[in-house]
Amino acid sequence: MSCIFCQIIQGKSNAYKIYEDELTIAFLDINPISNGHTLIVPKLHETKLENLPEEHSIALFKTVRELVGPIQKAMSTSSANIGINNGREAGQIIPHIHVHIIPRDENEPIWRSGRKNFSKKSKESFEEIALKIRKEIGF
Amino acid sequence: MSCIFCQIIQGKSNAYKIYEDELTIAFLDINPISNGHTLIVPKLHETKLENLPEEHSIALFKTVRELVGPIQKAMSTSSANIGINNGREAGQIIPHIHVHIIPRDENEPIWRSGRKNFSKKSKESFEEIALKIRKEIGF
Repeated sequence: MSCIFCQIIQGKSNAYKIYEDELTIAFLDINPISNGHTLIVPKLHETKLENLPEEHSIALFKTVRELVGPIQKAMSTSSANIGINNGREAGQIIPHIHVHIIPRDENEPIWRSGRKNFSKKSKESFEEIALKIRKEIGF
Repeated sequence: MSCIFCQIIQGKSNAYKIYEDELTIAFLDINPISNGHTLIVPKLHETKLENLPEEHSIALFKTVRELVGPIQKAMSTSSANIGINNGREAGQIIPHIHVHIIPRDENEPIWRSGRKNFSKKSKESFEEIALKIRKEIGF
């Protein structure tokens, strides 16, 4: 039980949770690329998408599709990058499948990609962002 | 009917197709970031994921999940970036939802991201790559 996402799922570690259902959970990335940067995670611990059972995969992407609109709206934009780093050479660090939703607008465009480049002055508090998103989702 | 992906779906434009079913199609990106860079596209024309009806979204991600393993295997790796640029500010150019699967390995790691940076000397022919992937998929 050293997986940080499993700890969050089990309530043993804190996270700015914005959504949860039987098979999935969503919370803010603690090291965001943009305001509202969210991770959607299947509760079942698997490292790679190709090994996630179909029921869990359907639930995962249902949550992604249902959350992307509200997350964008809460961040006052209509664009986001949605991505999975599937495997070590693809940049996966936590070995538990997670889908990034990264809101984008004129202030945080796609070419400002690195976490280091996220301008601190534009950072809202995690709690404030989580509240805005939960309000849009109705969670 | 000016959408290039709709033209491919209707057989009016050519593509290196690697998979097709009732609701989805997959073909090689003609301007790849790495060998095996594939686009998975819902046949229904929608620009943004939040507007894709559930049946089509389920079909889209079922195809993604089923193809990522074979694409990685065909390219002799076990990693890939999977991503959607959802909206103009997120870098979406073709206004028809498409999921990128970008195989990654030591030769084409994630930090070599730009299309310009894809080393020409390592490029295999599209036909050769499409054959390898179709063989793994059994399509």
